[in-house]
Amino acid sequence: MSKNLYITFLGGIGEIGKNMTAIEYNNHIIVVDSGLAFPSEEMPGIDYVIPDYSYLVHNREKIKGILITHGHEDHIGALPYVLRDLPVPVYGSSFSIALVQHKLREHKIQGIETHIVDENKNVFELGCFRVEFVRVTHSIAGAYALSITTPKGILFFTGDFKIDYTPVDGKNIDLARIAQIGKEGVLLLLEDSTNVEREGYSMSEASVGKKLDDLFAHNIHKRMVIATFASNIHRVQQIIDCCVKYNRRVAFAGRSMIKIAEIAHKLKELNYPKDTVVDISQIHSIPYDKLCIISTGSQGESESALTRMSKDELRKVTITDTDCVVFSSSPIPGNEKLIYNVINNLCKKGADVIYKDMSEVHVSGHACREELKMMMSLVNPRFFIPVHGEYRHLKQHIDLAESMGINRANTLMPEIGDVVEISKLGLKKVNKLTVGTIMLDGSFVQSSDMILRDRRNLSEDGFVIVILNVGASGLLENDPTFEVRGLTISQEVETIIRNRIRQAYASGEYKEMATAEIRVCIRKLIAREIDIRLKKQPIIIPIIFEQ
Amino acid sequence: MSKNLYITFLGGIGEIGKNMTAIEYNNHIIVVDSGLAFPSEEMPGIDYVIPDYSYLVHNREKIKGILITHGHEDHIGALPYVLRDLPVPVYGSSFSIALVQHKLREHKIQGIETHIVDENKNVFELGCFRVEFVRVTHSIAGAYALSITTPKGILFFTGDFKIDYTPVDGKNIDLARIAQIGKEGVLLLLEDSTNVEREGYSMSEASVGKKLDDLFAHNIHKRMVIATFASNIHRVQQIIDCCVKYNRRVAFAGRSMIKIAEIAHKLKELNYPKDTVVDISQIHSIPYDKLCIISTGSQGESESALTRMSKDELRKVTITDTDCVVFSSSPIPGNEKLIYNVINNLCKKGADVIYKDMSEVHVSGHACREELKMMMSLVNPRFFIPVHGEYRHLKQHIDLAESMGINRANTLMPEIGDVVEISKLGLKKVNKLTVGTIMLDGSFVQSSDMILRDRRNLSEDGFVIVILNVGASGLLENDPTFEVRGLTISQEVETIIRNRIRQAYASGEYKEMATAEIRVCIRKLIAREIDIRLKKQPIIIPIIFEQ
Repeated sequence: MSKNLYITFLGGIGEIGKNMTAIEYNNHIIVVDSGLAFPSEEMPGIDYVIPDYSYLVHNREKIKGILITHGHEDHIGALPYVLRDLPVPVYGSSFSIALVQHKLREHKIQGIETHIVDENKNVFELGCFRVEFVRVTHSIAGAYALSITTPKGILFFTGDFKIDYTPVDGKNIDLARIAQIGKEGVLLLLEDSTNVEREGYSMSEASVGKKLDDLFAHNIHKRMVIATFASNIHRVQQIIDCCVKYNRRVAFAGRSMIKIAEIAHKLKELNYPKDTVVDISQIHSIPYDKLCIISTGSQGESESALTRMSKDELRKVTITDTDCVVFSSSPIPGNEKLIYNVINNLCKKGADVIYKDMSEVHVSGHACREELKMMMSLVNPRFFIPVHGEYRHLKQHIDLAESMGINRANTLMPEIGDVVEISKLGLKKVNKLTVGTIMLDGSFVQSSDMILRDRRNLSEDGFVIVILNVGASGLLENDPTFEVRGLTISQEVETIIRNRIRQAYASGEYKEMATAEIRVCIRKLIAREIDIRLKKQPIIIPIIFEQ
Repeated sequence: MSKNLYITFLGGIGEIGKNMTAIEYNNHIIVVDSGLAFPSEEMPGIDYVIPDYSYLVHNREKIKGILITHGHEDHIGALPYVLRDLPVPVYGSSFSIALVQHKLREHKIQGIETHIVDENKNVFELGCFRVEFVRVTHSIAGAYALSITTPKGILFFTGDFKIDYTPVDGKNIDLARIAQIGKEGVLLLLEDSTNVEREGYSMSEASVGKKLDDLFAHNIHKRMVIATFASNIHRVQQIIDCCVKYNRRVAFAGRSMIKIAEIAHKLKELNYPKDTVVDISQIHSIPYDKLCIISTGSQGESESALTRMSKDELRKVTITDTDCVVFSSSPIPGNEKLIYNVINNLCKKGADVIYKDMSEVHVSGHACREELKMMMSLVNPRFFIPVHGEYRHLKQHIDLAESMGINRANTLMPEIGDVVEISKLGLKKVNKLTVGTIMLDGSFVQSSDMILRDRRNLSEDGFVIVILNVGASGLLENDPTFEVRGLTISQEVETIIRNRIRQAYASGEYKEMATAEIRVCIRKLIAREIDIRLKKQPIIIPIIFEQ
């Protein structure tokens, strides 16, 4: 695969999360992002899902580095696993790199080379590629788009972005540079598809500040508890600004909130007067109407601080009717039930709860249709591939590109594993890698499809162990006994099965068989009886003792 | 409990679905609704959940009948189970009763007395109660509110309702009669809380007709596939009206769609010219742009017709880029991921998909805040209890009632199992029944909490069987062997456990113990090792074979 330019999609396409894309030319590979996803309901007992990066492992000597667009989990979460196998240099903003380094420390991974991108140093040569980081606005500090100059032309990755003219940190999206790159001529644009369903423009993060101010003004006699994403440092900044204005102290709740606030404060991405922040263990000394708790749990995550508060499981914080709890967030599809459970528990305790269905104290970090169109028109690419979205988003994004004058033939809907060749002639799927997903379990052990199949099966139908004691004569010594979990088998059905097994032994049916074979027969016999009588398909394990 | 008036809340409070309320005075009980709910994610392998009606079984001789407000599953779905134990008369609209009778036939339950309510016969005496059915509008034909005159005063149950001035069937909500009842003096109002979060008024069902007409007009070259709730006969009517106007034939897909359309057509609730409807098996003979398929699956249900189409599993229907698929529905919280999976699969096949995030081809069947206030002001009750909602809804509904001048002391937030005494003096919780939920499993077998706990545990962490063969000497005859499912145990960990067990036997630790005791020790030993090394808590079953 030399002298041609290829993009390989390893994640983030047709699904949410675990973004990872590889760009390859003449034995040089650079990787954009390395994220994780949270497991679907189909994956019980799984904690994280990461891209299958075996293609990169097989081509390890070609890899020049990993470029990080921004520090969200779906863009950096897989790094501890990937870097363990592929200790290559990582490039990103100071905030992104600080989050990566925190992860590497947690995973006890040492010796990884990191490069911080900033205004003064935002262009790097990596193998045959020239990489330029271009500032964008997003719901996290230090977010970048990537302009990658290859021997075949420029690839422009927007990364996750929105166009916010009044960002909280004053660091604007560099539209002028994007326009200039567009003028130079871009071969291919890969654009964030998240909000392609939304008409118009996203609201500025600054607009949330006004809503927060209203809430603080109207709730001066309540304690405020505000849940948001820990990584949304600009949101946290705006909440703290309100606290300062309304003379409240701030306590952080939740491990990631405490940790990320600390990192951001150190990098001066989060700023507040001394003595504003108190430790959660000290809140008893502060009048409740002079306090604001900023908490994790805006997605109803089961182990988060807010969820534990709602169940009276967080020491130091008891929710009562003197609390005003604010979800400064929007539910990620699939989390609605979890979030409503938390809200219901908080309401039962008498708290006022402000959440999306009542009042929007949140804006999205992703560009809506008009912003996507603006980006397309500035970048003015020859070819277009929508990324970062489910298929419904990708399809609509291609429709949108077409409406902007990009010929449908010059677009492509990628799938995970696709290797796409890019040349002046067009986009072409040239290969499809067999990629799975890597499921990480418990203490970061990899899990397999078979184990998940068993778990799903167990969760629906349980299991049956039958214990048989076979004498020297090859006949049953005593009655088969059962151990059953996750299923009810009546005495009657047990007796039927017991009789069927006894009969089979007595008739000499199993006489000439090996034990393994007998086990298969008994498993089938039991499966059939249970399926007929209970319409269930448990896992069945016969254990045969032979004397 | 005689000579006092009580309401017992058996379902539908603080949760979605399985509505059931009992009203009791002087040994007379009437029951309002008898619905089911769908299981939460906490209930793997469960098909339905119904109210725990054991209180009614214990008081069977007092029960005068069950009143059905309308025929949705969350109001009638438990009837086949309840009526099997309590064969009491059932009262409801002709459409509700037809749906109930269909259910009873499916469950082979005979001999249930049913009474059809209509304009000419809508008042019944039941024991000491006088029951009046008052017509309301909702997302199903034949919906009623209930005005129940008791010796202590009038109880007014709104049932599920909205105020639709232009209902598709022309049968308006009887606001005049409601106002009159309000004038007579209502002791207690129990009002639908579903949409208390929504400001303003709900849109009329007729407004969907206009949107549908637009879609048909703009997609004359496509086949239309429209998913909606089968029971929303007025929606189905409007879709069929479009088909007639745009000269398309209609095919129904999905068991409940076919069945309910048949029932509604027979009752003249669904009307169309002869030859409009064709069987799904005949659609190959009709040009695709002259056809509209009306399908189940608007909630992404796994076995529904639309979901099967999206996976190429429904014979006769193949989805391509000549299809326009419309979700004429809104996701019920918790179903978002399922629905988006179906949408993604349809998009991948090239179909245009119209769904809530793009264009609203749906209106809610429940009253929004201004309608709730109108109802409150017409009924003008002394006391108020919000029903049909999660706690977040109930809390806001009480706040709303307070804003309407109802003193907070004259309201009450009920919980399931609460027995509330109503007198001129006020509302008073006088008892709390211990009620569980009845979980129905596989072939309608009841399931227990313990079984579910095992299933949840199994689905996360799997199980480990360890088989020990103990000789006459009380020592292990050979090495312990393992059967592990839903979990990975490395050779190394197996060896550690094996050694620990061997050691325990060799040291004589188990010498004086009974087998049951040894089993507990071994279970603990294995649990500890696996927890330390894998951070997992599987179910552990030691099987000890003694010679």
